[in-house]
Amino acid sequence: MKKATFYHAGCPVCVNAEHELLNLVDSSKIDIEVVHLGEQKNKIGDAENSGVKSVPALVLDNGNVLHINHGATMAEVRG
Amino acid sequence: MKKATFYHAGCPVCVNAEHELLNLVDSSKIDIEVVHLGEQKNKIGDAENSGVKSVPALVLDNGNVLHINHGATMAEVRG
Repeated sequence: MKKATFYHAGCPVCVNAEHELLNLVDSSKIDIEVVHLGEQKNKIGDAENSGVKSVPALVLDNGNVLHINHGATMAEVRG
Repeated sequence: MKKATFYHAGCPVCVNAEHELLNLVDSSKIDIEVVHLGEQKNKIGDAENSGVKSVPALVLDNGNVLHINHGATMAEVRG
């Protein structure tokens, strides 16, 4: 089972992307953890260290980051 | 079966995103057509009409467009 982390910040772009993406993926092949950075600000550093520049973004366990549309920069999330 | 179109232009960002995305999706739920706009320039208009601003992008059959990372703008693809 592959693992991935979907980072978002609750913005409309994020919520839409999350909904579309979770509808597409094969949940038997990949386990996606959803992290709301607005509510879990202590995870912003983890996201940045993984290469997340903006949200929403999906970090894959091979290290690749898929930035999907553009909701907010990490600076905006940090507030 | 849902349908979607993945537009790309053969760039490294595009090819990487295509590879990652096609690995994630549930092919029993969604049928993804891959269109290489560098080779099929006659489809650039279709892509723009669907709301594609840059490639790689995934256009869903509900009209939503997921722009994934950033390989090239449509103007760059048009050349």
